[in-house]
Amino acid sequence: MLSIDLNCDMGEGFGVYKIGNDEQVMPYITSANIACGFHASDPVNMWKTVKLAVRHGVTIGAHPSYPDLAGFGRRAMDATLDEISADVTYQIGALAAFCQREGARLQHVKAHGALYNKAVDDHSVAIAIAQAIKAVDRELIMVCLSNSTMVTAAQQAGVPYVEEVFADRAYTHEGKLVPRDVEGAVLHDPEVISQRVLNMVRDKIVVAIDGTKIPLKAQTICVHGDSPGAFEMIKAIRSKLEEGNVALRPFGR
Amino acid sequence: MLSIDLNCDMGEGFGVYKIGNDEQVMPYITSANIACGFHASDPVNMWKTVKLAVRHGVTIGAHPSYPDLAGFGRRAMDATLDEISADVTYQIGALAAFCQREGARLQHVKAHGALYNKAVDDHSVAIAIAQAIKAVDRELIMVCLSNSTMVTAAQQAGVPYVEEVFADRAYTHEGKLVPRDVEGAVLHDPEVISQRVLNMVRDKIVVAIDGTKIPLKAQTICVHGDSPGAFEMIKAIRSKLEEGNVALRPFGR
Amino acid sequence: MLSIDLNCDMGEGFGVYKIGNDEQVMPYITSANIACGFHASDPVNMWKTVKLAVRHGVTIGAHPSYPDLAGFGRRAMDATLDEISADVTYQIGALAAFCQREGARLQHVKAHGALYNKAVDDHSVAIAIAQAIKAVDRELIMVCLSNSTMVTAAQQAGVPYVEEVFADRAYTHEGKLVPRDVEGAVLHDPEVISQRVLNMVRDKIVVAIDGTKIPLKAQTICVHGDSPGAFEMIKAIRSKLEEGNVALRPFGR
Amino acid sequence: MLSIDLNCDMGEGFGVYKIGNDEQVMPYITSANIACGFHASDPVNMWKTVKLAVRHGVTIGAHPSYPDLAGFGRRAMDATLDEISADVTYQIGALAAFCQREGARLQHVKAHGALYNKAVDDHSVAIAIAQAIKAVDRELIMVCLSNSTMVTAAQQAGVPYVEEVFADRAYTHEGKLVPRDVEGAVLHDPEVISQRVLNMVRDKIVVAIDGTKIPLKAQTICVHGDSPGAFEMIKAIRSKLEEGNVALRPFGR
Repeated sequence: MLSIDLNCDMGEGFGVYKIGNDEQVMPYITSANIACGFHASDPVNMWKTVKLAVRHGVTIGAHPSYPDLAGFGRRAMDATLDEISADVTYQIGALAAFCQREGARLQHVKAHGALYNKAVDDHSVAIAIAQAIKAVDRELIMVCLSNSTMVTAAQQAGVPYVEEVFADRAYTHEGKLVPRDVEGAVLHDPEVISQRVLNMVRDKIVVAIDGTKIPLKAQTICVHGDSPGAFEMIKAIRSKLEEGNVALRPFGR
Repeated sequence: MLSIDLNCDMGEGFGVYKIGNDEQVMPYITSANIACGFHASDPVNMWKTVKLAVRHGVTIGAHPSYPDLAGFGRRAMDATLDEISADVTYQIGALAAFCQREGARLQHVKAHGALYNKAVDDHSVAIAIAQAIKAVDRELIMVCLSNSTMVTAAQQAGVPYVEEVFADRAYTHEGKLVPRDVEGAVLHDPEVISQRVLNMVRDKIVVAIDGTKIPLKAQTICVHGDSPGAFEMIKAIRSKLEEGNVALRPFGR
Repeated sequence: MLSIDLNCDMGEGFGVYKIGNDEQVMPYITSANIACGFHASDPVNMWKTVKLAVRHGVTIGAHPSYPDLAGFGRRAMDATLDEISADVTYQIGALAAFCQREGARLQHVKAHGALYNKAVDDHSVAIAIAQAIKAVDRELIMVCLSNSTMVTAAQQAGVPYVEEVFADRAYTHEGKLVPRDVEGAVLHDPEVISQRVLNMVRDKIVVAIDGTKIPLKAQTICVHGDSPGAFEMIKAIRSKLEEGNVALRPFGR
Repeated sequence: MLSIDLNCDMGEGFGVYKIGNDEQVMPYITSANIACGFHASDPVNMWKTVKLAVRHGVTIGAHPSYPDLAGFGRRAMDATLDEISADVTYQIGALAAFCQREGARLQHVKAHGALYNKAVDDHSVAIAIAQAIKAVDRELIMVCLSNSTMVTAAQQAGVPYVEEVFADRAYTHEGKLVPRDVEGAVLHDPEVISQRVLNMVRDKIVVAIDGTKIPLKAQTICVHGDSPGAFEMIKAIRSKLEEGNVALRPFGR
């Protein structure tokens, strides 16, 4: 039976601040990317989020970022490769300790926000991240944007990886994400999106923004949980996948 | 042959800022307590310091603190036990990841500054720290102030521990540290201090501030490396111990 | 005509994080205590909140805190008096700059959370705050808990001050706040609370928790805006005061 | 009599960390750019540095930065213009409050590190900084790299400004700084540098890296104080200027 993973950013509160609806969303996903204190979260929140993931049998990944709480990790920084490598190492370790406390195993690493985007554009950054992941634990899986330099970086660094697709984003003819500021870059209709996801998973293709069908490798699907609409979307995607006889299962299993 | 460990706080720079003389001191100690980014240090510095320790065969410990870079972790905070537990977990994990990168094993945990002092005074804080250490890795050793509530907390929590003494501090008749603001609380003469250390290690006694001889268990000796005088002190202590046929060896071996 | 001020903490978001309902509450209060980046907020949020206050003719105060974003300024810290004085100075200045940008005048300073509570308990801290306020601008008004050491500190330091009462808190026979963990310390019924506020303002008395009537000087009333219930409470208090022919007016006018 | 200003970055310590030799350098400069807590410093350090400047009759400027303590403000960040504007406002206000405490007047604003470099390259950033300065206080002077877009930004925004030259940097034929990674970009010989400074001030020219003489407007000279060599350089420059009958005087007078 065909299976797919749904990954979602989790644990993005900070101190008294809440964001997202982790309690509500966790039962519906298979992999959680948990913030590590650099763009969001703090040790108490990380611990709580790891416990919540464990309770729901959701596999856990670290979600490292540039050090930028005030900007939620969305602002690129001219950090050196050594700084990026060290920052990623630090964050993986910090989250791994909570996994150890809760008897879980850290499964994957997915860069957050501006760091993710940087790794998509800049091969040396993708390599730095891949090497940091491997150096800490050779079994950790790197989540890479499908068809991007992250994939080749993971291959070169010899890091296990999975290719990630976005449920609600348009793709170019070359299989890249259409930039957010282009009209039509972000999709909104749950029915369209769910069908699209099913096609990605079952047929390994997606209809690009120019109408052509292009091949796309989808090993995990990025979903969002931080708005009521987002949660409905997750449920719509799950239903459609179940209708299509696709099982939901973490990529690491 | 009798042996003892010399532990020293290391890696307490931050960004462009330097403190201490790690390169100079590292060859003379056997255990390094490495700052984890809460009172000092940052990921790049942590990585560099772990490499330096590995190069000199010095065993590595985490040196967690309250989150207070501006105050160098010297200001007590009304943090909850959950916050302390989570903060310690986070910092242990972050440092452990750099050890993994460099093929080293994290050996011990020693609380820093105000958190250490709090654990000496407040049994519940000592227990919270001990439980966090054990929950992350059952083989981690907790460094406890000799004769303090930290020792009983480690015992109750079932955490391996060693008792630490201070080379340059006076002790009360009860075997407690004389508070720093009492006259005579801090010793300065290298000859006096080295002889005192030798007595602690060989004879398991120390002369208290009231002149009485009291028993003291010394498994590791805290030395300082952040001033030229401090470095001379370390060398004087080493010479005296070697004269007295005491080997220098990490407590974990 | 009798008048009173309603003060409320404002601008307590941080980066992408929101807290409270500033847009909704601002029109109903007369003085805003605006967070300055140490327990909450950031420069962009501060600017936005100052603009909002100006738009509604609400007078502006700085709401300085211990440096503790992760703890929302609710954790006491063993900061020195010089550190407290410098931290308060810094925060007042930072907020004053946004007032200058928007053509407003900074009117008052109200310490936040653990720093406020510390100033209530520790006269030397209250003095340090009062002196910092005066040193920056002799016309700034210090908001002091009624009947507390903050009042005597303001008097000794020669700082203009107002006495603050809490609408929803019980008072002891001595006119102190009943600690939150005592049963009955926090009131919940809007009708009871509004009537109580009217009595405080008009008759200058309050019924203490032991049933006795005690005198209380109320120049500003602290209200909260961070929950739907809190907002309803503000409206209930305003209605009752209007019924009682009490005008709502900032204390600085 | 011809006069010139020597400006130097000051107050760049942080918590227990020291950098530079402020006590030694302050008597030899005329304008101090004081760090505001974003790339370096903290409230206690800022206060101490303002007092030191006042004691030596040195005029005071704010030295705002991107929020990046770990990177000492040397890493460019993709901050929005609103974020930059708000960050600059915040930092100016914070420093101004310490000036008010010490009876001094804030005279100028000079962006630090990556923010300065960004303002040199990106006109919209220079405009955002200029507008923030003007909005807080119309008499504040903006320090601009001579011949750069910062100058035209200050003119467009209607902000008083001075043109700054670097004593130890080579210039292109177009009057721009030669990038640091080009050979010959940084000068080291005190005699050469002092003579060069005298020519800049007296003759308003400098010999560019291609050997041509180019015009250069120098209203303030940036010097460094963070190494023993740097301090000797300041003294050499002062001697040469005094020999050449150039007075040392803050630009604001």
